[in-house]
Amino acid sequence: MKSSFVAAAPRYTGSTLSPRAYLEACLACVEAAEPVVQAFAAMDPAAARRAADKSEARWREGRPLSPIDGMPIALKDIFETADMPTGFGSPIFSGWPGGRDSAVAFALREAGVITLGKAVTTEFAGTTPGPTRNPHDPERTPGGSSSGSAAAVAAGMVPIAIGSQVGGSILRPASFCGVIGYKPTFGALNRGGTSDYFSQNCAGTLSSNLADAWAVCHEIARHVGGDPGFPPFTGGPTPALPRKPSALAVLRTAGWSIADAEAQAALAGFCDRLVSVGVVLASAEDSALIARLEAAIADASEVSTGINDWEKLWPFAELERREGARLSGVLRAGIAAGRLMTPDQYHALLLRRDAMRDALLALDGAFDGCITLAAPGAASVGLESTGNPVFNHPGSALRCPAMSLPALAAEGLPLGLQLLGFPGRDRDLSAVAGYCIELAAER
Amino acid sequence: MKSSFVAAAPRYTGSTLSPRAYLEACLACVEAAEPVVQAFAAMDPAAARRAADKSEARWREGRPLSPIDGMPIALKDIFETADMPTGFGSPIFSGWPGGRDSAVAFALREAGVITLGKAVTTEFAGTTPGPTRNPHDPERTPGGSSSGSAAAVAAGMVPIAIGSQVGGSILRPASFCGVIGYKPTFGALNRGGTSDYFSQNCAGTLSSNLADAWAVCHEIARHVGGDPGFPPFTGGPTPALPRKPSALAVLRTAGWSIADAEAQAALAGFCDRLVSVGVVLASAEDSALIARLEAAIADASEVSTGINDWEKLWPFAELERREGARLSGVLRAGIAAGRLMTPDQYHALLLRRDAMRDALLALDGAFDGCITLAAPGAASVGLESTGNPVFNHPGSALRCPAMSLPALAAEGLPLGLQLLGFPGRDRDLSAVAGYCIELAAER
Repeated sequence: MKSSFVAAAPRYTGSTLSPRAYLEACLACVEAAEPVVQAFAAMDPAAARRAADKSEARWREGRPLSPIDGMPIALKDIFETADMPTGFGSPIFSGWPGGRDSAVAFALREAGVITLGKAVTTEFAGTTPGPTRNPHDPERTPGGSSSGSAAAVAAGMVPIAIGSQVGGSILRPASFCGVIGYKPTFGALNRGGTSDYFSQNCAGTLSSNLADAWAVCHEIARHVGGDPGFPPFTGGPTPALPRKPSALAVLRTAGWSIADAEAQAALAGFCDRLVSVGVVLASAEDSALIARLEAAIADASEVSTGINDWEKLWPFAELERREGARLSGVLRAGIAAGRLMTPDQYHALLLRRDAMRDALLALDGAFDGCITLAAPGAASVGLESTGNPVFNHPGSALRCPAMSLPALAAEGLPLGLQLLGFPGRDRDLSAVAGYCIELAAER
Repeated sequence: MKSSFVAAAPRYTGSTLSPRAYLEACLACVEAAEPVVQAFAAMDPAAARRAADKSEARWREGRPLSPIDGMPIALKDIFETADMPTGFGSPIFSGWPGGRDSAVAFALREAGVITLGKAVTTEFAGTTPGPTRNPHDPERTPGGSSSGSAAAVAAGMVPIAIGSQVGGSILRPASFCGVIGYKPTFGALNRGGTSDYFSQNCAGTLSSNLADAWAVCHEIARHVGGDPGFPPFTGGPTPALPRKPSALAVLRTAGWSIADAEAQAALAGFCDRLVSVGVVLASAEDSALIARLEAAIADASEVSTGINDWEKLWPFAELERREGARLSGVLRAGIAAGRLMTPDQYHALLLRRDAMRDALLALDGAFDGCITLAAPGAASVGLESTGNPVFNHPGSALRCPAMSLPALAAEGLPLGLQLLGFPGRDRDLSAVAGYCIELAAER
């Protein structure tokens, strides 16, 4: 994986290091890995080189547009771009010119960031996979829906990529590919110009390090804010310094019963290390508050699926009317399920989701956050499924900040440690995450 | 104005009345008034006639798609339509084919509603006017931004039109044109496929009667719901029966000091009639709760403007980068103001807006709703300005259900009585509205 772009940025004013040199190192990884990994749906190395040279000039003149001027990035192919096609992972939109920048693409352009390419997504960020393979083992799925975003970072093609998560679409691929997946508090990054506005959908990052993720989120918020009506990203321009948490809630979630024994043991091992350094851990057996949260999120998958199906009525039922069978069967089944719902049923699901959030908020003060697995095990063999999002649905339904850290392993492959924070408290989560990253590195 | 389509619907199974006959009556009004009024940006009478004939067949077979199957409607030209161009009131998009149905267009098509045409909007539903004239006096503005929607209904061209309001864009044109303007609780009608997702923006109706408005909102919610994450329209399939309110809060708002003496007197006269039938009225002098609300909404225009300017950063700053001077000067000034703001400043405005809403909610139980003027006076002479939204910013910022009823007059022209209800309680508001409409008709 690439080292932090932003950490080296102050030295881009010298001559031995430069955005162009950083980009060339990325392109070398692309050349080496992309034929197998297939992380990109579209790419423009020539335009990237031109942009890197311009960035280099700005750094030399002491006038970079931002601390991440010249950073190469990949955008999940649901984010519209004015100068590259946007395909949404669907044959209906293959090669679609779009013609405008999504909010994220616009903001990053304003900050001088270089969009190297569009990262493969599943069909409309759902479950029908693209061609991307896991860089750690090309016979295995990279996870999804932000498949190309995770794989491109894992293969060192870019230090960071933009993804999005409505179910498990950032944290699961991050877990499978061994990168940092970060889903901010809901609404913190403007989703304008993407394929849907699902009420759990959140833009976020997959990255090799926390500093680059923070800098990117900060610049997005500075230029276009968050979703209309929501506080923009509040994490600050850099992550907080690593800080040992006082107490963490260990969640099992509905996923525990299907988690691999090796994955369960990996989490238990990390928990032992946390305890050994003095972090207080508690689970549902120890705390009525945690038991209440576990009960509330036990059906997070059912609630999330119902909400998502209803929200497919537009734009996807409209698209189905025009394009019919060019939509996947699984997407059409979701639309059909949505059509069977009533507005009142949807409203009832929203209230159940709100109750989950209330149960999380009740932990504030007693705990610094929650930890659990980011997936039931390592990436599975085969590309036909991007894996099970059962461990990710709670964080999505809670609309809290969530991370997957490459701190665990199973089958000799990466496995993510999942952290959940409190809504709007992304900066506090970064302090805990920084500590866990350091603890994992000491291994 | 047209009589209710939905009220006559049960008889469309007979032979003397039909969707086609209703449409022809609308088209006769179009022929008579449209050359002067210019309410439509696009229209397709031939397609509407074909659709009306198909609807008529469904009614005769006893299989209408909904109670509003065959209803002619106009859509504000910010709602994308698959079979008509969408221009957003901007030369940049003039004749733009779009190619898909917005959520509202899709839902209404599913319900058998006939989109007769696209109603003129100001530029991107902002303040730069289109060519539409007020049917009551062609030298005067129809109001805006839902200019064509209000004018088309007032001229009898359609019984109902879809509009949207972020500042005063439904209630003010309704006031100026003498129709019923209805802005539901924020989020109740799905805005997918419109020009922006501003956090105060709300789809709503301009109509000749309450029954058609309710039926249309109900069908939209049934087929596509509300904005993702918000409870869909909860008003029921028909408005509540008219019910005399026990108590109403009379608001002055920041608009009172600039309201015409005649407008002030018109409201006072209606208040006298309410008191004469036993409705308890109170204002800031009588009630600390109302005084608190008046104080909270005193700067609703400033807060709304700041929020809207920030939310222009996307899509409009992006559009400006590509299209520059093809955007109006006033829109570009708003973008420039947004660029000077910080995410924290925006967040602070959101908190001030939330405080307004808290002050409104505190009235629940003590009052059945609020009344005030819908505009400072009758429509002004000249088309260069669509009028002052000062009386509408509070209802927009409160994100509560709001209505303008054609119950008052000034300068011999229509003037709206504004009602504000409690969020999610649109049905209760319809009961009060029904009563006020009856009271006004007794005059």
